[in-house]
Amino acid sequence: MAFTAYIYDVVLGSFRPVRIEIRNGLFAKITPITVTEHTQIDVKGLILPGFIDSHIHIESSMITPAQFAKIAVRHGTTSVVCDPHEIANVMGIEGIEMMIENASKVPFNFYFSAPSCVPATPFETSGAVIDSKGIEYLLKKDEIVALGEMMNFPGVINGDEEVLRKLELARKYEKPIDGHAPLLSHEDLNKYLEQGISTDHECSNIMEALEKKVKGMKIMVRDGSSAMDMEGLFNIDDLEFPEGNPFCSTSLFKAIFEGKIYNPLFDFIVSDDKHPNDLIKGHLNLSIKKAVSLGIDILKAISMVTVNPAYHYGLNCGVIVEGAQADFIIVDNILDCNVLKTYIAGECVFDGENVLFDVPEIEDFNSMNVSKKSADDFDIHYDGDECEVNVIECFDGELLTKWSTAKLYVKDGIVQPDIFQDVLKIAVVERYGGNAVANAFIKGFNLKKGAIASSVAHDSHNIIAVGYNSEMMAQAVNMVIENKGGIAVVSEDFADSLPLPIAGLMSNEDAYDVAHKLGILHNMAKALGCELTSPFMTMAFMALLVIPSLKISDKGLFDGDSFEFVDVIRN
Amino acid sequence: MAFTAYIYDVVLGSFRPVRIEIRNGLFAKITPITVTEHTQIDVKGLILPGFIDSHIHIESSMITPAQFAKIAVRHGTTSVVCDPHEIANVMGIEGIEMMIENASKVPFNFYFSAPSCVPATPFETSGAVIDSKGIEYLLKKDEIVALGEMMNFPGVINGDEEVLRKLELARKYEKPIDGHAPLLSHEDLNKYLEQGISTDHECSNIMEALEKKVKGMKIMVRDGSSAMDMEGLFNIDDLEFPEGNPFCSTSLFKAIFEGKIYNPLFDFIVSDDKHPNDLIKGHLNLSIKKAVSLGIDILKAISMVTVNPAYHYGLNCGVIVEGAQADFIIVDNILDCNVLKTYIAGECVFDGENVLFDVPEIEDFNSMNVSKKSADDFDIHYDGDECEVNVIECFDGELLTKWSTAKLYVKDGIVQPDIFQDVLKIAVVERYGGNAVANAFIKGFNLKKGAIASSVAHDSHNIIAVGYNSEMMAQAVNMVIENKGGIAVVSEDFADSLPLPIAGLMSNEDAYDVAHKLGILHNMAKALGCELTSPFMTMAFMALLVIPSLKISDKGLFDGDSFEFVDVIRN
Repeated sequence: MAFTAYIYDVVLGSFRPVRIEIRNGLFAKITPITVTEHTQIDVKGLILPGFIDSHIHIESSMITPAQFAKIAVRHGTTSVVCDPHEIANVMGIEGIEMMIENASKVPFNFYFSAPSCVPATPFETSGAVIDSKGIEYLLKKDEIVALGEMMNFPGVINGDEEVLRKLELARKYEKPIDGHAPLLSHEDLNKYLEQGISTDHECSNIMEALEKKVKGMKIMVRDGSSAMDMEGLFNIDDLEFPEGNPFCSTSLFKAIFEGKIYNPLFDFIVSDDKHPNDLIKGHLNLSIKKAVSLGIDILKAISMVTVNPAYHYGLNCGVIVEGAQADFIIVDNILDCNVLKTYIAGECVFDGENVLFDVPEIEDFNSMNVSKKSADDFDIHYDGDECEVNVIECFDGELLTKWSTAKLYVKDGIVQPDIFQDVLKIAVVERYGGNAVANAFIKGFNLKKGAIASSVAHDSHNIIAVGYNSEMMAQAVNMVIENKGGIAVVSEDFADSLPLPIAGLMSNEDAYDVAHKLGILHNMAKALGCELTSPFMTMAFMALLVIPSLKISDKGLFDGDSFEFVDVIRN
Repeated sequence: MAFTAYIYDVVLGSFRPVRIEIRNGLFAKITPITVTEHTQIDVKGLILPGFIDSHIHIESSMITPAQFAKIAVRHGTTSVVCDPHEIANVMGIEGIEMMIENASKVPFNFYFSAPSCVPATPFETSGAVIDSKGIEYLLKKDEIVALGEMMNFPGVINGDEEVLRKLELARKYEKPIDGHAPLLSHEDLNKYLEQGISTDHECSNIMEALEKKVKGMKIMVRDGSSAMDMEGLFNIDDLEFPEGNPFCSTSLFKAIFEGKIYNPLFDFIVSDDKHPNDLIKGHLNLSIKKAVSLGIDILKAISMVTVNPAYHYGLNCGVIVEGAQADFIIVDNILDCNVLKTYIAGECVFDGENVLFDVPEIEDFNSMNVSKKSADDFDIHYDGDECEVNVIECFDGELLTKWSTAKLYVKDGIVQPDIFQDVLKIAVVERYGGNAVANAFIKGFNLKKGAIASSVAHDSHNIIAVGYNSEMMAQAVNMVIENKGGIAVVSEDFADSLPLPIAGLMSNEDAYDVAHKLGILHNMAKALGCELTSPFMTMAFMALLVIPSLKISDKGLFDGDSFEFVDVIRN
């Protein structure tokens, strides 16, 4: 294949018309041309390298890798470095290999990282454990290009043996180590960095990013569904000029203040999580526009999703040079950056209207090793007329919760939730064979009736449910179990569900269908009184123990500050 | 050699701390490091690739290549692509080889282009002719990386055989062809481009640059002593949105208008000519700051003098990557960009105070094949009492002249110049053995007495002189001849000169000494009444026939619009 086109050269930061020859999926020859009346420019539009999302958990999109590819190519994404951390918590290495297998069947560049923290904590029941031996097994694979985000920074800092062994293995196999170190700084950050951890996608303000950058990390600006750090990172209003800061900050600060250069601090733009309803709207194509609206040069933004991640992870793409894989997109123009066509390894995979490849399914199986529940599984007992309880208080769009308390009545020995105080019941149902149920109280969901349940519950993905009524909660949980996983909303008047039969996390349906169904469930939850923007997402994070204050695992109510379990009933 | 440092990575557009290992003059290994309290950063400052001036005529600096290197490394320049067009007009291939030989003796990257237009026109006597055979001889040399600027665009457009042969040879030897096409556009530009000419450094406004860019040229933004196009190129006030423009301009224009992206139009920053008095003050280090003051991102400006020219001319420098030559500079910070140290091929050549290499001289020789002149050589005869004459009118800082006329008295059969009208005499003395003298009149120099003369006179570099008095003109010319070339100022009260014994163009002295002497001569010319900013430069361009309107060669007064000789006396 050979054609003439205008390209934007991300290495030189310049436009030029060229003749491109593609052989065996690679750019075989790039020849500069001159454009006169005798020259035909074959491509109507501007060619850029395909976009690379260098940190994403595909499971959060609730679709298979193949289905992810199908929607992502519409937005100009041609490569992802994905951390199959969620499925690993459910199914371990077997789940990762299932993802790799499914991914390999579509023309899309899937690179994987080996999930470093499975399970996330010892305070919950996960479906699998990946120890250092498992990590070594994974790191030997060609598809695995990095050690996934090291969330266990206390383990790194305190020299946990198994954690250090995993890090050592990544260094041994010369694969980069991704970091995850929100607000880590000073000595603790130094210890973390000395292990060779080289990226961070958790920076939420410029001062944090600056310290990490100066110390040698590459900064991933996150613009995803769960967390959007871009505004915070690009806000220099709070910037304070630090005294005695390490080298090169003076000039950086000066440049930042003068608005002359904003670029060299940030290396990548990533999504981390992209929910189906967001993913159908766009991906990195929207993120780079957002970066531009916040003051980043479009050309720098493009580098952050092309050459920079390719170079870091050693991927043979992200640039239009001879020898690189012929992954490219055609956009209408450099500013609007609307994706007209997408090519991977020289083949057109999106022609502006249709995606030109078939999507293989992952065979149905049941990862739900759990028996049906009845209403009394969700009762909290107390011997008295009323009691004071600890309550998880959650907030719209936030992962952090507050430790609240409430006084509740007791009827027939069962503590009663209170709609007027908005103190509902929350439960985590272990689904890996143990059949435990942990019950507690939560504030913030405002459900006036019915219940919601989901098998997406970070990071162990047991079944989580919120409701007023034990019977409704049992019905919602049982619907999830019947579906082999997924999300369910039930009430006296209606019930519906989004089945996620693959590990309880993903569907074989396409992104549009999943997003559509999720939208229906959202509306149903709203009809039940819930005012949260994303009730299922908020619920999923109520089991994420590493983020304070009060959370819940299948083992009970958990204090994320002191890292210990607490009783539901205070007196 | 190995050390740790912060680098600015021009390919990734990002800062990072690394450990650099240098072996055999190359970057042998670049290892990312993390910076904690245990890490020593050896280099105090930020490392950038050394700067590359991708289009310069070193002869305009009036010093030898070796002396040029000595001053350029102080400003962070480590490479130049130089077109030895001036010496070629005087000495042909022998002169070019003398330049290459001298350049090879200092640790500096001199790349040369083969001068494509020697002589510049058939209307003057030059010291040499370089035909297509000579061009082929040059193109075979490793030191020659390009065919030098093709100024003869009429020759290209009209299909001049010898011109086309030279262009064909450049394509045959796969060496880029530099362009020089001021204001060329539409069909003519198309014909010019079809020959594979790939750069232009003559754009003076954004519309001109845009057409050339869209058609496939790489745009060199010129910031030199003779011509400073940067302001004009970066001025978008006059920008008009063209209808039916070729592809990709819509978005470019939009971006330009919105001030969101200014970068991808321009590829290089070059100096073209750098006079000694400017060169001692700075080089590309000042040009990039100027670009920043005009709205270009400093990071883009740095790319324009590093990776971009290196890539275009196939030079193994301009980037800090493994395998590239270890040419780098240490600057205080990215914004001020003050050069603290300069390294070439891993060796420190400027330590912040001293230049650490010796400068070889070019052996003295006499390129002046011309006999001494007497006053009557500069007389213009007329049989009558007065006459009307054609007058070259020149303007401060401009290459263009105006065709004026004046009425002059005749005394003893000799036409008399007139100080009150500021109509002085101008002469070009052929210095290649023919001994011809062409005389005419000029307005604009305002010399009240004395005369100035110089062997720097573009492009053939015959001796040019301006004065009121024939005797003074003869003395000035003879002083140039005695000096084997150079610049002279004489009057009844004083006389002084700057000898340029190497081809009448260059001195073995260093830039500071030459600049100092030139400053003295400037002041002397001023004392004689001349108000021009650079009287010798202005005089040098009075012989540049290709720039209209009225000019003078050793063969007579010349009309640069109709390309024919004209008589001095009108009646």
